[in-house]
Amino acid sequence: MKVKGVNLGNWLVLEKWMNPALFDGTDAEDEYYLPQKLPGEVYEARIKMHRAEFISERDFVTIKAMGLDTVRIPIPYFIFGDREPFIGCTEEVDKAFSWAEKYGLQILLDLHTAPGSQNGFDNGGISGICTWAEQPQEVEFVLGVLERLAERYGMRKGLWGIEILNEPATAEIWDTLRVPERYPAADQELAKKNKPITLEFLREFYCKAYDRIRLHMPEEKYVVFHDGFQLMAWKDFMREEKYKNVVLDTHQYLMMAEMHGCEQSVEGYVKYIKEVYEPAIREMAEYFPVICGEWCLFNSLACGHDTKGGQSVLNGVDGLQEEVMLPEEKKEIYQALAEAQLAAWNAGNGYFYWSYKLLTDTVNTSGWVGWDAWDLGRCVDFGWFPKQ
Amino acid sequence: MKVKGVNLGNWLVLEKWMNPALFDGTDAEDEYYLPQKLPGEVYEARIKMHRAEFISERDFVTIKAMGLDTVRIPIPYFIFGDREPFIGCTEEVDKAFSWAEKYGLQILLDLHTAPGSQNGFDNGGISGICTWAEQPQEVEFVLGVLERLAERYGMRKGLWGIEILNEPATAEIWDTLRVPERYPAADQELAKKNKPITLEFLREFYCKAYDRIRLHMPEEKYVVFHDGFQLMAWKDFMREEKYKNVVLDTHQYLMMAEMHGCEQSVEGYVKYIKEVYEPAIREMAEYFPVICGEWCLFNSLACGHDTKGGQSVLNGVDGLQEEVMLPEEKKEIYQALAEAQLAAWNAGNGYFYWSYKLLTDTVNTSGWVGWDAWDLGRCVDFGWFPKQ
Repeated sequence: MKVKGVNLGNWLVLEKWMNPALFDGTDAEDEYYLPQKLPGEVYEARIKMHRAEFISERDFVTIKAMGLDTVRIPIPYFIFGDREPFIGCTEEVDKAFSWAEKYGLQILLDLHTAPGSQNGFDNGGISGICTWAEQPQEVEFVLGVLERLAERYGMRKGLWGIEILNEPATAEIWDTLRVPERYPAADQELAKKNKPITLEFLREFYCKAYDRIRLHMPEEKYVVFHDGFQLMAWKDFMREEKYKNVVLDTHQYLMMAEMHGCEQSVEGYVKYIKEVYEPAIREMAEYFPVICGEWCLFNSLACGHDTKGGQSVLNGVDGLQEEVMLPEEKKEIYQALAEAQLAAWNAGNGYFYWSYKLLTDTVNTSGWVGWDAWDLGRCVDFGWFPKQ
Repeated sequence: MKVKGVNLGNWLVLEKWMNPALFDGTDAEDEYYLPQKLPGEVYEARIKMHRAEFISERDFVTIKAMGLDTVRIPIPYFIFGDREPFIGCTEEVDKAFSWAEKYGLQILLDLHTAPGSQNGFDNGGISGICTWAEQPQEVEFVLGVLERLAERYGMRKGLWGIEILNEPATAEIWDTLRVPERYPAADQELAKKNKPITLEFLREFYCKAYDRIRLHMPEEKYVVFHDGFQLMAWKDFMREEKYKNVVLDTHQYLMMAEMHGCEQSVEGYVKYIKEVYEPAIREMAEYFPVICGEWCLFNSLACGHDTKGGQSVLNGVDGLQEEVMLPEEKKEIYQALAEAQLAAWNAGNGYFYWSYKLLTDTVNTSGWVGWDAWDLGRCVDFGWFPKQ
């Protein structure tokens, strides 16, 4: 099995930096606080328009033309519309299946958020908060969502698989990213309950989730679990016969490599990719099919300055106002890093680029020079990313 | 001079069929009635989100990668925000200039609507109404808008030109299209004042507009006028020395050719293109540079049924529910018609495809089979339209 895919990030799970207009005129930093900052019908109008416009039929045609075969769709825990004030999105996911089936693409449904958040990232539902795993009723709620997803979409021809939960943060990543500083909590009282997730909890949760999903989803479809940012920790996991078509998902961003000391040069990045990413994936591929479910070409070198691990103006870190690299220089860097990373992911079972599209305006808003590399559409059009 | 361009239709001037979500839950058929049917802040939220998402920086990157060099941007008469309840859009146009200049594209600003409408089309501001030219104060208002456009954008590096007014309807097209039936007026009292525009009026208006635009826009930028659907009527127009860089714009759609009796077969279309369009353009190119400012690949043959001149479910005419053509058949038809039409437009001075993008969902909404040919993005991705 090999997968060549892209994430439809910011469609059904919002990220402010990818779509500032949605948050216009509010001080909300994430999708949790957005409905608190807007009149109800304005919130609804913004969300509905965004969903109708950000991804549409034509994007599935484009993704197919890029040579890709699969899309990973981040979905929120409130997809079924039972968590007010948030608005459900089964209608959009239903449409996505029709488009995928029409144009010959497959869908990986990725549960990207949990109530109380599983990681405290801005994209985890609520910035700076990580309390989900501490609340048994919310853990059960998420298992229920997974079961309902399998029930609704398990038999769809266009379904590739279901990913249990995106990026649960274990202690290591919590400390490396310094989550509380990087994503300050709006509610400091709530933040006092923060606790990184343990591997022990995750293992148990993943096994339960597998069972609940398999109640409705046939064995030929994949159940995907994220490594919790500890790729090597899963060698003794789900070894039993009953677990079929389970895929291990690891996310590898060059900005994280930089935080781990990777030199900010083409040679430095390529060396890191070949000597760190690739052998690890190769090793784990003996235990599970391994995908790199999120990665991109973004790096500090092509930005023209050290981004300190991908921190942006939203983290209070100024980016460059003007390009300092020539287009040809950037192209060379990105092409080399695309080649090296694609080779690493193909040592496993393929990849999903993060992300298909972003609305971030690098020309009219200041500090975003170099951030267009997160947008696969632009990468393809600029010739940075090879046709697949 | 040769131009290879595309229209950014439905961005700043709305068309319901291209973007149903904007009109969701209302019975408005056009952008005039939309704000009357929605609470003010919902209207504002929908419009702002639509403008932020429908076209963004990444689309300029894509258009450049398609090999095109120019975009035609339809703008409404209320661009300057002085016609409540409509919301101005200079901010969006300003951004477009920055993007165009960054990525090496040029912009043709096309005044697409006039108060009271110049054509009664759904895209002319108010369906079924054509009263603008009868109101001297509104004629003056439009001249003022053109002057302000030239003042604001005349010196921009990214400006290719300004088009005075899109598709003023003279008696011939009014009768051919049977505008009052095709676009029923919501206000029948108002419709009683309808009057197609005369060539005499247009000539005088265009001359005045030229002078007002040239007050601020240098002579190397183009002033474009639409033929009023009478391509051959302009041989004795603006022959005086003072008129510099004036371009004649004609719009040629195969659905109109069908209404004029063109046979619905590849041979029929190609024959019509070569024997009607091309000689006419060649003849008029002796008087003005001639562009085909709107055209597309859409035709009844590839739809699989006679669309009666491009009538859709919005006109109460049912389209097909299911594809009847094979993808390869469609591709052959569209490729042949792209080649023939591009050759015809190049007998003049080039073209602008209508349109870059539409959100119309041919999979999940019924009756739209074949309408994806209006979307250049999809045409390129499907391989129907050659890389320029």
